[in-house]
Amino acid sequence: MIEFGILYDLALKISKIQRRKIPKLFKDKRVYVFAGDHGVVEENVSAYPKEVTYQMVKNYFNGGAGINVFARHIGVKFFVVDAGVDYDFEDHSFLIKKKMGYGTKNFSKGPAMTKDEALLSINYGRQIANDAIESGADLLAIGDMRIGNTTTATAMAAAFGYNIDDILDIGTPIDNERLKNKKKAVERAIEINKPDKNDALDVLAKVGSYCIGEMAGFILQAAEKRVPVVIDGFPTTAGFLLAYKMDEKVKEYALFGHKSKVKGHKVIMDSLGVRPILDLDMRLGEGTGAVLAISIIEAAVKLYRFWGDKYDCINYGWR
Amino acid sequence: MIEFGILYDLALKISKIQRRKIPKLFKDKRVYVFAGDHGVVEENVSAYPKEVTYQMVKNYFNGGAGINVFARHIGVKFFVVDAGVDYDFEDHSFLIKKKMGYGTKNFSKGPAMTKDEALLSINYGRQIANDAIESGADLLAIGDMRIGNTTTATAMAAAFGYNIDDILDIGTPIDNERLKNKKKAVERAIEINKPDKNDALDVLAKVGSYCIGEMAGFILQAAEKRVPVVIDGFPTTAGFLLAYKMDEKVKEYALFGHKSKVKGHKVIMDSLGVRPILDLDMRLGEGTGAVLAISIIEAAVKLYRFWGDKYDCINYGWR
Repeated sequence: MIEFGILYDLALKISKIQRRKIPKLFKDKRVYVFAGDHGVVEENVSAYPKEVTYQMVKNYFNGGAGINVFARHIGVKFFVVDAGVDYDFEDHSFLIKKKMGYGTKNFSKGPAMTKDEALLSINYGRQIANDAIESGADLLAIGDMRIGNTTTATAMAAAFGYNIDDILDIGTPIDNERLKNKKKAVERAIEINKPDKNDALDVLAKVGSYCIGEMAGFILQAAEKRVPVVIDGFPTTAGFLLAYKMDEKVKEYALFGHKSKVKGHKVIMDSLGVRPILDLDMRLGEGTGAVLAISIIEAAVKLYRFWGDKYDCINYGWR
Repeated sequence: MIEFGILYDLALKISKIQRRKIPKLFKDKRVYVFAGDHGVVEENVSAYPKEVTYQMVKNYFNGGAGINVFARHIGVKFFVVDAGVDYDFEDHSFLIKKKMGYGTKNFSKGPAMTKDEALLSINYGRQIANDAIESGADLLAIGDMRIGNTTTATAMAAAFGYNIDDILDIGTPIDNERLKNKKKAVERAIEINKPDKNDALDVLAKVGSYCIGEMAGFILQAAEKRVPVVIDGFPTTAGFLLAYKMDEKVKEYALFGHKSKVKGHKVIMDSLGVRPILDLDMRLGEGTGAVLAISIIEAAVKLYRFWGDKYDCINYGWR
């Protein structure tokens, strides 16, 4: 079925995940955007102050962000997870409270969190995915929103052995001085904390974040429950990388929604041997690439169902 | 707005086409698949006999092809144009009859059609687009379905000066012997007919097809009426190339839905300086790549409307 290109691979992957010869249509698609604050922001690594994190979460409540537009467009339910924002939110139907604290510690001066906290963030993430699946979700996507996110993702990747210069890039549009700060902060984080790349939880505790821990737990649980999960850009891929270091089988359950413009994203996906569905030069984050890719994943499933059920596949060979 | 990547470019393009500061949402999206037979098929260039062309058209009537699945998925109305199939179809709500004949002549032995016919095919294509727009269509897409299509597209491109070896590829999965036949057929077509690359109508008449003529006319008229038209794979891009040679302004109105796996497709798009929206390794034809891309185009328009209308764009700088 070379005519179908990667649509065939996508449909086959969904089939395998669902353990069905013919994949079933998705009835409850959801995106979870993980928000939290990062101590490392005090190193002047981002164009924006950390207050933007909580402002954006409030903006989500009003349906006022790019991801809200796309979720409505594709027909995906939207949720935002407070993994550790430095703000106390009121209840909201979109909000899932799994607050680990009011922001991580500055990892360029010491560990971002304790190892107990790291483990708890994984468990919180697992709980979120479990609740989602128990309440009917059959296709999951993740996104992230936090000032300092690409710095943390870069530190995580560096801790796992990637070369900093291969992955260092701007997240928000920052000047050269801030980019240098970002590099220094990551280098210091590795130097001071000495994360053990063979101990994923150690890496998370020392140079990670609450969001990345919760995203990794979310992915691990989705895999355990055999529900596909669509990954978004660079920071969510750092979350995937952490989950993968804990259990390589997550790769069978993850789909990579897009290749973002952030340099390190391609480097990590290439090293994992995974191919993103879309390549639109976006660097919006908040799950936008993952959600747009869902339209393609659904098209693949529909084509496969149609062709597998009723269609003489020989006829498809005509081109 | 670097965060939006090509979504920004897409929305801006739609804005300019519509001559509106804020682009309007599409209310009537349509895909037109052009079907016809090719005399050159007798040179044994395809894996399939020409009868597959009319069988596939009948299959469309039953909603039984990939493009039908995708058109339903994305919410696009489907039409198939009989530009010159060697078969008499009964009326059908999906069918548009603009039959130029029962297949072109074998262009490896002489001209595919007369120059009068070439002109008529352009005008037929213009009529189809005009009828579509008059009846409300505000976003158009084109596809093609015919055995021998990539051979014709290769001959057209060669006539316009592209190197045959740079663009020659399999369309249907064919063996090396047939690929050699294809190359020979194209080379003979150029040698015998000596198309004048500065006379687009001459190229169409000598080494083109009814479909390519009608697609070019369709694109020219869409541009004249300021309606965006989404191009699909290699053969539809040959149709675009022809329209472009007649009037370069069509480039402002065309969007390129995807990059197909057929080698020459990328070569032509690169030379035109256009970027495809999707890259899924597909080679299905029949407008499938164009229709899937419509979901992304709509997302871009919705984002732009939202952000342009109600949103403080500064807030979008956070990443």
